[in-house]
Amino acid sequence: MDPFHCLTFLTDYGLEDGFVAACHGVALQIAPNARIIDITHLVPPGDIRRGAAVLAQTVRYLPRAVHVAVVDPGVGTARRAIAVAAGDSVFVGPDNGLLSWAVAEAGGAIAAVSLTNRALWLDTVTATFHGRDIFMPAAAHLAAGTPLAHAGDELDVASLVTLPRPESRFREGGADAEVVTVDRFGNAQLSVTGADAARAGLVPGAPVTLAWEGHHRAVAFGSTVGDVAPGELVGYPDSAGYIAIAVNGGSAAQRLGLRPGTRVTLTVTK
Amino acid sequence: MDPFHCLTFLTDYGLEDGFVAACHGVALQIAPNARIIDITHLVPPGDIRRGAAVLAQTVRYLPRAVHVAVVDPGVGTARRAIAVAAGDSVFVGPDNGLLSWAVAEAGGAIAAVSLTNRALWLDTVTATFHGRDIFMPAAAHLAAGTPLAHAGDELDVASLVTLPRPESRFREGGADAEVVTVDRFGNAQLSVTGADAARAGLVPGAPVTLAWEGHHRAVAFGSTVGDVAPGELVGYPDSAGYIAIAVNGGSAAQRLGLRPGTRVTLTVTK
Amino acid sequence: MDPFHCLTFLTDYGLEDGFVAACHGVALQIAPNARIIDITHLVPPGDIRRGAAVLAQTVRYLPRAVHVAVVDPGVGTARRAIAVAAGDSVFVGPDNGLLSWAVAEAGGAIAAVSLTNRALWLDTVTATFHGRDIFMPAAAHLAAGTPLAHAGDELDVASLVTLPRPESRFREGGADAEVVTVDRFGNAQLSVTGADAARAGLVPGAPVTLAWEGHHRAVAFGSTVGDVAPGELVGYPDSAGYIAIAVNGGSAAQRLGLRPGTRVTLTVTK
Repeated sequence: MDPFHCLTFLTDYGLEDGFVAACHGVALQIAPNARIIDITHLVPPGDIRRGAAVLAQTVRYLPRAVHVAVVDPGVGTARRAIAVAAGDSVFVGPDNGLLSWAVAEAGGAIAAVSLTNRALWLDTVTATFHGRDIFMPAAAHLAAGTPLAHAGDELDVASLVTLPRPESRFREGGADAEVVTVDRFGNAQLSVTGADAARAGLVPGAPVTLAWEGHHRAVAFGSTVGDVAPGELVGYPDSAGYIAIAVNGGSAAQRLGLRPGTRVTLTVTK
Repeated sequence: MDPFHCLTFLTDYGLEDGFVAACHGVALQIAPNARIIDITHLVPPGDIRRGAAVLAQTVRYLPRAVHVAVVDPGVGTARRAIAVAAGDSVFVGPDNGLLSWAVAEAGGAIAAVSLTNRALWLDTVTATFHGRDIFMPAAAHLAAGTPLAHAGDELDVASLVTLPRPESRFREGGADAEVVTVDRFGNAQLSVTGADAARAGLVPGAPVTLAWEGHHRAVAFGSTVGDVAPGELVGYPDSAGYIAIAVNGGSAAQRLGLRPGTRVTLTVTK
Repeated sequence: MDPFHCLTFLTDYGLEDGFVAACHGVALQIAPNARIIDITHLVPPGDIRRGAAVLAQTVRYLPRAVHVAVVDPGVGTARRAIAVAAGDSVFVGPDNGLLSWAVAEAGGAIAAVSLTNRALWLDTVTATFHGRDIFMPAAAHLAAGTPLAHAGDELDVASLVTLPRPESRFREGGADAEVVTVDRFGNAQLSVTGADAARAGLVPGAPVTLAWEGHHRAVAFGSTVGDVAPGELVGYPDSAGYIAIAVNGGSAAQRLGLRPGTRVTLTVTK
């Protein structure tokens, strides 16, 4: 495999400890010239779906790379450690679905291996820090030119764990969906693409009712948050191509009590 | 323009999402050899003054660079996207005043353009993420050697939006000022330079009364926080050259209720 | 000295301000080709022991480097600024014990200097930001090839401040220890290595009673957090080689009220 100039890194390790730096240190001793892009290390501990969503929505803007992602509540148990070729990149992490949405985004898995070749691991492997001891050293060897097939036993790509997609259902004048993720600004991203929303009549200018958990509120649909007055609710196609619910200058998630997984209904008001 | 080896980056994007990484990814695909220095991404959402203060106080320590700053509550509305040459650097961001204090710090605007050349943008531009779609790709092209004039229509530098400076007024033995910013340690930076303070008699050793919002407290003036006993209040010239109010080993902002914008009076006690 | 390709950086500066970036900017103007690995900047303000623990537990995974660490509640007072050669690396920071555990981990101090050579400092040195004005520029000069002896006056390595080690005492079937540090996941690391624990009979499968501050709880010993059911307490050798107390899927520190410094007793239950 041609060497990769770039490694990317997403975890739930947080920034208070030296965990991320230890992984960077391991990588740079194996692939000294690789650039490392940290995607985020603030995935809530063990939240595989959140990690999968951030990775999938970021990866299309990243260079060809070995993408390392570790949100791994099953570390030390029987789950497989995998490397998956997709598009022109390779994804490395636990086989718990974390990588699956990004792999699909990159065009689907072309080949996969179980990271069983201990020659690519650190000499000492702990039971609890496979990011440092297995995933990152294996990824750095791949970045430095080690062929995927040398990283371990070939896997049937159909055997890889995939996360179920957030649900959405459309009808003329409305949609049932769920909150996929909430960003720093309190914008709640729904499992509805802008294109699907438009087909259902949820278009800029349409007056829409948002209903969830027994509540309902009027939401103006627009093309950006600034389309409504400060303090007003707005639905708009966000930067990842999904419909998000926001408050201009405030937090929609906080005001409405929306969380990842909250089921919502959007209905165009006659 | 000679290529730049360095890009710097300041936003209110936070670190929980993949927003910063997407911008890094975009930059490195255009300017693969550029170093990126992240200034901070924890500007409170939409707080242009805070972003302007951090940028202006950091920039004098940064290498020649294309400095990209995005705190942009008006994204998607009519505000201009600009690139401003100042000193040996270029500043890129929204024309909402965010860049203005740093541009002044760097010697003032020499030339400016509106980023209207779509050839430097990403192919698809969303309404809400101009950092990724416009500012960073344009900045990376400038870093890679594209001349400023190619980035868009020339602007009259006098037309650039500037933020009003925090107010301060001096008299013999005192000053009226405001809190500019509060750092991680709870130190409250005032709109009073160390030089101005000295001219007004606010010097190390002077007993000073700090008054704000109906409260007042005695504050010892010193040259560093360690000049007073643990738990004591101190005024001192901070690392950016301004007078700050601190508590040795504690948070002055928390103890006194000081926030950016709080108006204060300093009076040398006879 | 051979130039170093890598600088590492650990502080309590936080990520909200431009402090870390100013130091990066200073470093890159002196040593433009150095890679910088940020270990963490979220050491609680002034918490020297926490900084020392993170640095010591991370350093073995880092490349040969100039390691810069600044947790410096005594900045501006008489404490020395030092550079210490240990193993194939150099450690730079305040002489307050912060570096001492990492220096020991690296094999012990070979040579040390007081950073008295002002030619390696910034031209203007503030009383409160020696990280930017003294430590980082001196470290960057060392990284660029300046010999250690040129950085300042030689020091007797026996004169360096060392932090007392966390206490631990062993007996057949038990140990007295203290909590060294708590990580993002709420796992409480104890001052007991896995090897010492094994010698005392605290081995996977052993039923153990954890006692602290008048409380006691049964803890299963295992080899990883996943060895117990979700919500259960477990003691296991962590990724740094110490025994940690965790809750599978939760925070042991929060549930049990464990903090750095909490004294605990482990006893194998007959």
